[in-house]
Amino acid sequence: MTRTLRVIGIGPGGVRQVTLEAVDAMQGVDAFFVLDKGAASSPLRDIRRQMCDEHIGPGRYRFVEIADPPRDRDPVDYDAEVRRWHDARSEAIEGALLAELSDSGVGAILVWGDPSLYDSTLRITDAIVERGRVALDVEVVAGVTSASALTAAHRILANRIGEPIHITTGRRLASTPAGADTNQIVMLDADCTFLRTAGPDDHIWWGAYLGTPDEIVLSGTVGEIGETIRATRTEARERHGWIMDIYLLRTP
Amino acid sequence: MTRTLRVIGIGPGGVRQVTLEAVDAMQGVDAFFVLDKGAASSPLRDIRRQMCDEHIGPGRYRFVEIADPPRDRDPVDYDAEVRRWHDARSEAIEGALLAELSDSGVGAILVWGDPSLYDSTLRITDAIVERGRVALDVEVVAGVTSASALTAAHRILANRIGEPIHITTGRRLASTPAGADTNQIVMLDADCTFLRTAGPDDHIWWGAYLGTPDEIVLSGTVGEIGETIRATRTEARERHGWIMDIYLLRTP
Ligand SMILES: C[S@@+](CC[C@H](N)C(=O)[O-])C[C@H]1O[C@@H](n2cnc3c(N)ncnc32)[C@H](O)[C@@H]1O
Ligand SMILES: C[S@@+](CC[C@H](N)C(=O)[O-])C[C@H]1O[C@@H](n2cnc3c(N)ncnc32)[C@H](O)[C@@H]1O
Repeated sequence: MTRTLRVIGIGPGGVRQVTLEAVDAMQGVDAFFVLDKGAASSPLRDIRRQMCDEHIGPGRYRFVEIADPPRDRDPVDYDAEVRRWHDARSEAIEGALLAELSDSGVGAILVWGDPSLYDSTLRITDAIVERGRVALDVEVVAGVTSASALTAAHRILANRIGEPIHITTGRRLASTPAGADTNQIVMLDADCTFLRTAGPDDHIWWGAYLGTPDEIVLSGTVGEIGETIRATRTEARERHGWIMDIYLLRTP
Repeated sequence: MTRTLRVIGIGPGGVRQVTLEAVDAMQGVDAFFVLDKGAASSPLRDIRRQMCDEHIGPGRYRFVEIADPPRDRDPVDYDAEVRRWHDARSEAIEGALLAELSDSGVGAILVWGDPSLYDSTLRITDAIVERGRVALDVEVVAGVTSASALTAAHRILANRIGEPIHITTGRRLASTPAGADTNQIVMLDADCTFLRTAGPDDHIWWGAYLGTPDEIVLSGTVGEIGETIRATRTEARERHGWIMDIYLLRTP
């Protein structure tokens, strides 16, 4: 009498960047739960549908959309607001698991990139398991990250010989300690924060919509191409109505 | 008159952890170049052969083994020795590209995990392209990293909300600056370096042979299970004749 929830990494955007293991895990799923993040993420929903059409068959799977609880995007206490929002989300998902799956049913959530990286799904499933209202087996399938898509698109290594790699967010970029900033992969940065933190001779490899037909890549020193990246980002975001971008910064 | 070399990430060990894009890239390859790292890596060679058998067909592909130049594993100047060894390796591979592929032939190298992470293949191809003796188009296919395999096996996130993630090696672990050590993913550590650097209350998630039928995972605080990990690692390494392991360390 245990429901199963498969948390499946589907890669960062390319429909062929999904693994065979993920395709296997998409089989025999009674319902795919989709967290509705509003209009901006509808291209992401399209890619998920495209994958299900191709690997399960059109009309042979079921999507259950779960409305996202409202979220304060500019709260006084950022962490507290994120936690509150996750609680509300996990209760909505718990309700959907109970309502949409049989006692021993199999649900799935298709996660962008890899489920371990700046994604809230596993925090939500942990909360559901902890509350103990629904007996749940959680399975996780690893995926290709957007960091790997970035380095592959530029055909580069993330590190020089033996060097560490620091993965961080736009919000935290300015607080990376000296010595950890040799190679930084920056995600979730809507503000081109590198323009304020990086030196002009730092090298940047930037990419947006990686793996998709709209992929854009730019690279050079921050001094040379920093402003070009900012302008390209702004223009692309307006044209598409959304953007996902990531970059690697390297000190000389 | 340009040869193509596909550098294909095949994931960290599970035969189903390969992407569809990697399977696509394995088609139409005239020769797969295999860098012979000696007996210890023969299980890795077996997995590559298994993938080619399944996705191309037994007998329908060609492996070209390139003997690895000798390497000093304990040099005075580590970086210089690595560079010298990469030069020797890239010349051996350049020779093989010229000898084994036609002017417009397609070669491939199947890389463990993702090609961007602590792997020398792209450094070698850069050196070949720079020398300019052979006209070469390099293509890169991203793969699932061992870091993602680790977090998936433990069903955990790599970061707490918004926190950075530091990826490093056993060799450099002791020199991670304070503030960057909240979440550390440690690769290439033959010495269980965490036993010297981590506090007893730090949490560790450890995994070996991830994605393969021999997968082992252990987790707990360093104080509780540090020595168990060391003993398990030693025993497994002796039994299998080789080991690949990785861990995530998190401060409380
Ligand atoms: C909420 S995080 C999720 C990351 C995801 N779990 C992964 O493994 O890549 C979203 C961020 O990932 C990055 N990202 C994801 N997909 C991307 C893509 N196709 N192109 C560029 N950046 C991407 C962007 O930095 C974006 O802000
Ligand atoms: C030379 S690096 C290559 C890493 C690879 N490019 C990747 O993306 O994971 C080899 C290290 O990766 C880690 N590793 C690779 N495959 C692994 C596996 N299946 N299980 C555990 N660790 C693995 C170990 O830390 C090992 O020392």
